[in-house]
Amino acid sequence: MKTVGILLRNAIILTMDENFSIFQPGAIAIDGDLIVAVGPETSVLESYNAEQIINCEGKILMPGLINAHTHVPMTLLRGLSDDLRLDVWLLGYMMPVEREYVTPEFVRLGTKIACAEMIKSGITCFNDMYYFEDDVAQATAEVGMRAVCGESILKFPTPDAQSYEESLSYSRKFIQRWKDHPLIVPAIAPHAPYTCTEEILKKAKDLAKEFDVPLHIHLSETASEVDNSRLEHGMPVIPYVKKQDLFEAKVIAAHCVHIDPGEIRSLKNANAGIAHNPSSNLKLASGIAPVKQMMDIGLNVGIGTDGPASNNDLDMFEEIRLTTFLAKGTSGDPTALPAKTTLAMATRIGAHALHIGDITGSLEPGKRADLITVNVNVTHNSPSFKHNPDGPYGQIVYATKTTDVNDVMVNGRWLMLNRNLLTLDEDALLRQASEYAKKIDLFLEKRESSVVLKLIAIGGAHEEESFEVQVKVEITENQDIEKRLLKSGLKILRKRHYREYDSYFFFENPDEGRLRYREDHFISDSGEITNVRSRLTLIGVRSERHFHDKVILSRSRYFAPATQSQRFYKEYFNSVHMLEIEKDRRRYLIEYKDTEFFINIDHFHQPLLGSFLEIKSRTWSLNDAEKKSALAIELIELLGLKGSLPITEDYIELIRKKEY
Amino acid sequence: MKTVGILLRNAIILTMDENFSIFQPGAIAIDGDLIVAVGPETSVLESYNAEQIINCEGKILMPGLINAHTHVPMTLLRGLSDDLRLDVWLLGYMMPVEREYVTPEFVRLGTKIACAEMIKSGITCFNDMYYFEDDVAQATAEVGMRAVCGESILKFPTPDAQSYEESLSYSRKFIQRWKDHPLIVPAIAPHAPYTCTEEILKKAKDLAKEFDVPLHIHLSETASEVDNSRLEHGMPVIPYVKKQDLFEAKVIAAHCVHIDPGEIRSLKNANAGIAHNPSSNLKLASGIAPVKQMMDIGLNVGIGTDGPASNNDLDMFEEIRLTTFLAKGTSGDPTALPAKTTLAMATRIGAHALHIGDITGSLEPGKRADLITVNVNVTHNSPSFKHNPDGPYGQIVYATKTTDVNDVMVNGRWLMLNRNLLTLDEDALLRQASEYAKKIDLFLEKRESSVVLKLIAIGGAHEEESFEVQVKVEITENQDIEKRLLKSGLKILRKRHYREYDSYFFFENPDEGRLRYREDHFISDSGEITNVRSRLTLIGVRSERHFHDKVILSRSRYFAPATQSQRFYKEYFNSVHMLEIEKDRRRYLIEYKDTEFFINIDHFHQPLLGSFLEIKSRTWSLNDAEKKSALAIELIELLGLKGSLPITEDYIELIRKKEY
Repeated sequence: MKTVGILLRNAIILTMDENFSIFQPGAIAIDGDLIVAVGPETSVLESYNAEQIINCEGKILMPGLINAHTHVPMTLLRGLSDDLRLDVWLLGYMMPVEREYVTPEFVRLGTKIACAEMIKSGITCFNDMYYFEDDVAQATAEVGMRAVCGESILKFPTPDAQSYEESLSYSRKFIQRWKDHPLIVPAIAPHAPYTCTEEILKKAKDLAKEFDVPLHIHLSETASEVDNSRLEHGMPVIPYVKKQDLFEAKVIAAHCVHIDPGEIRSLKNANAGIAHNPSSNLKLASGIAPVKQMMDIGLNVGIGTDGPASNNDLDMFEEIRLTTFLAKGTSGDPTALPAKTTLAMATRIGAHALHIGDITGSLEPGKRADLITVNVNVTHNSPSFKHNPDGPYGQIVYATKTTDVNDVMVNGRWLMLNRNLLTLDEDALLRQASEYAKKIDLFLEKRESSVVLKLIAIGGAHEEESFEVQVKVEITENQDIEKRLLKSGLKILRKRHYREYDSYFFFENPDEGRLRYREDHFISDSGEITNVRSRLTLIGVRSERHFHDKVILSRSRYFAPATQSQRFYKEYFNSVHMLEIEKDRRRYLIEYKDTEFFINIDHFHQPLLGSFLEIKSRTWSLNDAEKKSALAIELIELLGLKGSLPITEDYIELIRKKEY
Repeated sequence: MKTVGILLRNAIILTMDENFSIFQPGAIAIDGDLIVAVGPETSVLESYNAEQIINCEGKILMPGLINAHTHVPMTLLRGLSDDLRLDVWLLGYMMPVEREYVTPEFVRLGTKIACAEMIKSGITCFNDMYYFEDDVAQATAEVGMRAVCGESILKFPTPDAQSYEESLSYSRKFIQRWKDHPLIVPAIAPHAPYTCTEEILKKAKDLAKEFDVPLHIHLSETASEVDNSRLEHGMPVIPYVKKQDLFEAKVIAAHCVHIDPGEIRSLKNANAGIAHNPSSNLKLASGIAPVKQMMDIGLNVGIGTDGPASNNDLDMFEEIRLTTFLAKGTSGDPTALPAKTTLAMATRIGAHALHIGDITGSLEPGKRADLITVNVNVTHNSPSFKHNPDGPYGQIVYATKTTDVNDVMVNGRWLMLNRNLLTLDEDALLRQASEYAKKIDLFLEKRESSVVLKLIAIGGAHEEESFEVQVKVEITENQDIEKRLLKSGLKILRKRHYREYDSYFFFENPDEGRLRYREDHFISDSGEITNVRSRLTLIGVRSERHFHDKVILSRSRYFAPATQSQRFYKEYFNSVHMLEIEKDRRRYLIEYKDTEFFINIDHFHQPLLGSFLEIKSRTWSLNDAEKKSALAIELIELLGLKGSLPITEDYIELIRKKEY
């Protein structure tokens, strides 16, 4: 008879080992951080005695759940914005708020809130990717949970690094510091192929190999990511990263929604772990991953919640249920991924996916004591049938709620007993979270009140205010203005020909001005489109001033380039009205009396507004504007258009007046 | 200042009215069973005082959830069997257990357990379809919940009716009894087009019209239901029931997974309510309903859990979340069905789908006081952001758990306060449920132990034991047996030609015998297949006796016809091994010395076993068997096959010996 630290007896034990051994009633002996025995109650009690013996009558005892992919500090951004397009959500809300608020303090608080939620939900181990990952690791170790922690690396500046070199150097120190910790497995996390360069991927892989730590990355999350990879690299995402030798590292690939059978085989050959995140993939409309196909080939597919900002919680029972539901619902086969298989994905197989299957994921002697008890004697999970040996798996997967988790142990230490958290003060955490939410609310309320601030929030880096004098007259085809211009003797510095597609967004408050999204398609002398450029311009609503009744002074703020799609801006700015214009523009840069002017010869395609000559020049003072206005009127005369009625309105005003 | 019964103040009130009015802080005044006022706290408190005033600080107050489709007594069958094909699950487990156990007592207990679960999950109203519906209504009214209760009608015998006429007459009395009840809306529930006849559909519709009650039916749940409707009726399900004038009634159509845009328009024109059941549709692999398209056209689509045997719980928060997740995930559009829309489906729109939108579904003066409070100040739903007015909808849909529901009121009466059920004794219910589970476990354990009992369980109605003497010899093509037979002078009573496809299922315990699934394809004189018949036969493993070293006496049990597919039987009987045979058979019924014999001339296609002559006759006594054996040997001689070696084994033994 050996005496150990803890004996748990009279439980329905789902070991989740390779043979899916069930002991009912079963007992488990734990000494220190290790499981020393698990089996039928009588045989364990014959060999072991313990200081603490707990009767688990009526409860299922099983390995703790493994959350295979998340961003835990984002609990503080939970519910910040929902039901938006991925780019609007990410670029319009998440990233601007992260740029403003993510600090080591934010990360520690968010991590602790996530740990509280996860422990109460029966999760004992998670795989994280965020910024200031050293603080994630510190907070997690304090709480006593197990985690794989990966510092994010991107090609853009992040909340904790101005450049990827800084992130790499942070990662090296981070890995060195945590390498031998009993709870934390440090990892390196190049964010995704499309947010990294080939160099970043290679250096991250080298670091992972040097220290033999996992490499955590988002792969093939959306169809457009794969489309773009084909366009840019001539191949889908998995072959592309394989070409960068990424699979030399122990890869944990999050998502893998859009992969084909060949890519599934590649991932298998690479022994990559997969993290399937069904709620997030559905909520962000990324799609449904081919999980059954991956499992059929023997890939280690774990299940994750993704970050709580895109889920919006850390409920693994929901994710497990969704995994089996989606496999059945999309295949037409109700026997696909039965309960015991998805529960294995969330435990033993999930641990293998994170490359820590040797220490956790199942209840077997020699593994760390990471376990939970679940109360199935509750109304929503009653009655319990015994005739089917797989019944307990069905009860856990199809009807258990997080609130049925009774006790949680990690590494031999109780983190929750009878639903009381032992290492965290929940109320204090929620009070602090509420303070953050108030600050973020103020920031967003202020921002949402102004188009300019919303523009800046999404990285309107090149803000530049400009004033411009402008004179415009209507012309006809047979005036043959271009010929006149060439014969005029004016010095022509540059000529461009393009097709311009403008979308004007109007706002509820007209004082906000209008936002113009412009695509310039450059047309070569041979008539081919040689380049396309997109720009955003916020235009003041009124002309500042008129000169000589003919020339207007206008103000605009320029934010170049427009890196997102027209649709993104439309939804992000929540415009109340939109107007589209399409015109052909021949643009001359000329010099007249030592002053540069642009002369635009515009022909409208949509709407059919006619043709116009426009003379424009930038200006910086009222005197200069006055002087340039006079010159512009001279130019009109020089081109033989003296009699033409000057138009003192923007095209857009003309169109609105004519009610196209 | 008017004094009312109850005032709830300081809440975040989501009225879920047409304008999605939110009052924060808001108050609601309730008098008797009615809402008399709802609005900003200050204005309500100015006009009303109350006997009971409750401060709902930090809680969301909203209409109770409406479970638009369920079979509540099936809580007692929750988790009975999972991960099976629909037909195996339904015909192999649900129906046999229902036939054995469903009684008024079962139904009342199952209903009360469901009510306990639903109240604790924030559901105030449900739409039910089951047997003994009078007992469902009685139990529900005792508990104090609101429900639409529909008595099931099928063309088969049910637990509460030997024929559909009995069900119709039950329904008439049931409707008359409950017509004016404050909580129960009686309905009529023809189960589904494929389980009803045209006459049943018409009579059910007439009854629904006569009493102006809803008609609740399953429509277009699976692709095969639609395929079969096309085959049988030349049209899909919706046009077929429209042709039966079903839409003259106030229809509640459950599922509608496989419907096209024309059918969606038909349902809209008919003002039919739809009940969407995402968990059940996924778990049973029925598919994903086109909910967004239905909502776009303005159909009233409610959300349901379906029965707890196919879900396996009654968690509407999960169903709401799944509804929005699936709409987004399958459309690629993350803005599809935003949180406020799906929450409306589970409240106001759901009530309209059940044709009771005038009395419940939103918090508006004049409607019944059916409401819940939800605690969102919990770790898994924190923090709360205020900058986005739709934030509370997101909190309810994306992160609320049933256990966050704090209080529930139906018809002005508290059913739960601070999570204490006020009208039910949960522990007593669970004890009784556990007793039922033990009985059902015993029944199924006994049944699973015997192939014969499993056969009977799925309606082996025509069980018939038969003994047969049998002699068999190998023949060759050039023996031209058929010509010899015709020339023999034997009296030929009948001749058949068919192709036989046999599947033999073998079981772990060889004493169980073998189950043969046989398809006979009848071939006409012109060589065409004119008919196909499927039969199941359970064959005793050993021959009972040998006669004259040549003739065997065998025993078989016959269960005709095989109404399910071969695949069904394979999975239902969980066979360990299967063997397939394909042969051509010319079968003569002849008379020899006043005794009838079958003479089979068999030619094997698969495996290539050769050709055989078989002489068989049914027998009922050992003396008779002895006599017929002698005659059979004479017949062999008569056909000139005296020298052939008699084969005393079944074909299947021959094949196994030769190891095909």
